[in-house]
Amino acid sequence: MKNVVNLYATLSSEIEQQIKTNVLKIGDRLPSLRSICSERGVSMNTAIRAFHELEKLGLIEAKPQSGYVVSYSHSHFKNIVASSQPKMVKGANSMDEIMNLVVENYPMAKTRLSSAILDARLVPINKLNAAVGAATKSLSDSGVNYSVYGSEKLKTQIAKRATVWGGKFQPSDIITTSGSTDALAFTLLALTRRGDTIAVESPVYYGILRLAYSLGLQVIELPTDPKVGVQMDALERLMKSKKIKLCLLVSNFSNPMGACMPEEHKKRVAQMAAKYQIPVLEDDVYGELFFGNKRPRNIKSFDEEGMVLWCGSFSKTLVSGYRVGWLEAGRFKKELEKVKLNHTLYCTTITHEAVGIFLEIGRYEHHLKKLRASLYNNYLNFQRCISLYFPEETKVTHPTGGMNLWVEFPKKVNTIELYNQAILHRISISPGRTYTLQHQYNHCLKLSFGMKWGDDIDSALKRVGKLAKEMM
Amino acid sequence: MKNVVNLYATLSSEIEQQIKTNVLKIGDRLPSLRSICSERGVSMNTAIRAFHELEKLGLIEAKPQSGYVVSYSHSHFKNIVASSQPKMVKGANSMDEIMNLVVENYPMAKTRLSSAILDARLVPINKLNAAVGAATKSLSDSGVNYSVYGSEKLKTQIAKRATVWGGKFQPSDIITTSGSTDALAFTLLALTRRGDTIAVESPVYYGILRLAYSLGLQVIELPTDPKVGVQMDALERLMKSKKIKLCLLVSNFSNPMGACMPEEHKKRVAQMAAKYQIPVLEDDVYGELFFGNKRPRNIKSFDEEGMVLWCGSFSKTLVSGYRVGWLEAGRFKKELEKVKLNHTLYCTTITHEAVGIFLEIGRYEHHLKKLRASLYNNYLNFQRCISLYFPEETKVTHPTGGMNLWVEFPKKVNTIELYNQAILHRISISPGRTYTLQHQYNHCLKLSFGMKWGDDIDSALKRVGKLAKEMM
Repeated sequence: MKNVVNLYATLSSEIEQQIKTNVLKIGDRLPSLRSICSERGVSMNTAIRAFHELEKLGLIEAKPQSGYVVSYSHSHFKNIVASSQPKMVKGANSMDEIMNLVVENYPMAKTRLSSAILDARLVPINKLNAAVGAATKSLSDSGVNYSVYGSEKLKTQIAKRATVWGGKFQPSDIITTSGSTDALAFTLLALTRRGDTIAVESPVYYGILRLAYSLGLQVIELPTDPKVGVQMDALERLMKSKKIKLCLLVSNFSNPMGACMPEEHKKRVAQMAAKYQIPVLEDDVYGELFFGNKRPRNIKSFDEEGMVLWCGSFSKTLVSGYRVGWLEAGRFKKELEKVKLNHTLYCTTITHEAVGIFLEIGRYEHHLKKLRASLYNNYLNFQRCISLYFPEETKVTHPTGGMNLWVEFPKKVNTIELYNQAILHRISISPGRTYTLQHQYNHCLKLSFGMKWGDDIDSALKRVGKLAKEMM
Repeated sequence: MKNVVNLYATLSSEIEQQIKTNVLKIGDRLPSLRSICSERGVSMNTAIRAFHELEKLGLIEAKPQSGYVVSYSHSHFKNIVASSQPKMVKGANSMDEIMNLVVENYPMAKTRLSSAILDARLVPINKLNAAVGAATKSLSDSGVNYSVYGSEKLKTQIAKRATVWGGKFQPSDIITTSGSTDALAFTLLALTRRGDTIAVESPVYYGILRLAYSLGLQVIELPTDPKVGVQMDALERLMKSKKIKLCLLVSNFSNPMGACMPEEHKKRVAQMAAKYQIPVLEDDVYGELFFGNKRPRNIKSFDEEGMVLWCGSFSKTLVSGYRVGWLEAGRFKKELEKVKLNHTLYCTTITHEAVGIFLEIGRYEHHLKKLRASLYNNYLNFQRCISLYFPEETKVTHPTGGMNLWVEFPKKVNTIELYNQAILHRISISPGRTYTLQHQYNHCLKLSFGMKWGDDIDSALKRVGKLAKEMM
């Protein structure tokens, strides 16, 4: 019996080692049980026990029709980070200097772990080129004129897709924008004034902080849980106090925390928006990038009084260079249409039509299936590398979608310093300090995994881990 | 001798009538002298004298290798409007209601004389489609990624073209934008604050008023001459008083007045900007659309201290739906780059590259030559129709470029009322009241002539003239 134990344990620990050292890569198929038996000269029973052992460890999983595949998973991840406890004071300090550091050095970097950008190798370029060609034909003027009403095809498809999560829109409800940054900017321009205060999650995407800073808005950062998002009671106290003019939430797989608000929280936010008459802007750029089986619902689906504005874009899910985003502005539709007209007139006709066509002929869904699998694969690889290479006490988020990870190093690790070290190796990372207006998160790091996985990424993460360890 | 006088006078007045009634159309070639002689049985001498008579009247002109062509011109135009004398008080009233009228009814209109929009029939659509195709090939990622630095090709071409009027830029000086409305919005966002005052010409393009209103800016409208633009002394008094934070000028062929500031005025504005340290934003969207032989210089060419920001777009000269504009921000470059990043991130990659390619291979210059000829032809036709159909005492601007005319009816004609009448005939015109924040210009009208000329336009102008006469 002892011998048998040794046999299957030896086999499973050998395979475990191969997975941890990336000899067997995430997504790889394991040899069949039959071939294991013949190669190793073990019984079928032994092979099965070894596989079960690895399965229990969360290192492999059985896939229908594929046998077992490597799926390095949760039991091996670093511990999850705790809820953030940001300083809940108004913040409007400039953080431009730090931000500029990352932006300015970006071209120098060879391995870019800092930005939530979709790798061109994950984009169906030829099919998009074909859609652009089709757009020049489907538009009677080939798209040379102003797109006064926005692409009807695109608006129809956006409205249609929304039904999946309970959104009920007419195409005419959709205001097209040049990405979701435009949609955020227009909403803040329409509904806030210099000196007003808005509430956001914390840590929060620096683009939101920069925009608020540019408009002279005060920002209150809310305690945020890496699984369920902003702390609801804190948010309600703030809304009730009427100290804020607007609440901006990325409800699904936000950058950087990656939390996905549960439905009951989303419902409550929609109810609070109505109760306290404070508009909620829901930025849904990552909602389509779920790792599970189901598209999460949005706050907007619980909005009965039009107090929730829902925006999104195709920049993280299909193509960023086409500048295609949207906004459903609820009861603020007229104001928002005006601000768009005043500030930018119209969007690019051809590329908006091209995305409309791409969706209409069903290519988006097909593409998303592949993309989600790639991102999930990246995610597991990142977790594997972080577990192996980062300091022992490191914590990390465990998002269920998106393309961002928030890493908490032991306090000794200063991530601005780590950034400066990493960029010398042409690796770009994103220091935690850039995700807040307060002096906090100095030992934190945001990593994005929208790239195509490869050994270069493995090496870069190894390097970052090594540099962090040297700081301790 | 008397007989001869009668003969040539009869002949010339017959032809004059044919031109005025549009039987002979502007741009048409006249029959050759030889064929006139044989058809009419007159001597060559008589035919020559008749043609000279018409030439003196400014109705025809000799074109090299083409003989004589119809060129209905200045001596037949209505009198030029006088300098505007706007109420020089701060204005920040809403004018949304009137504006919405024009915008909302726009789809109803069949003949659109209201907006400075380039007709798709004047756009080289096939060549632009080819440029889009070329862009997807010349960009290594086919343009699916963010255009972080903007199209290098485009920036190079914009910098190159600027040398014609004395602009000295590196490609890296050019900030690309999605049209010039974006450039205006970014500049006002960067350099002004809610409650600040800016100075503009008067009447002024309502897009500028709407944008200022949206940002909570006060606007002072300057007396403006239809030939030379804003009154320089009035502008200097204002700048000296430090009551304004910024001055926004469309120095060449502005909408609606069409004035082209002379070089000495441009130089003085640049000097005043430096002397009083007040930034001047020069919107140059119409600069390429000159009717004469030479591209006018810009204020920017006299700017030695970087206090002048120069912006423009291809929307009025080539293609509006591609959303391609730019900004050279002088000493404010860094601030403006930040505002662009914060508010919209990047521009559409493919269409910006496509315009860059279109310019690089020399097609823009060729296209502009044809476009300028078409617009000049439109201009003459508009002047002809206004002379023939509009009330006797009507005055009109005599711009030397662009695509806009400012019409001053006798005071009895209310152009909001005229608008309401015209739209019933599915004709869209632009009431003067929308070009100011004050209660003025109620008897004025803006007409744009960026369309392809045709009998429908002639009929529409006739209808507008008839409706105006009925109001008197």
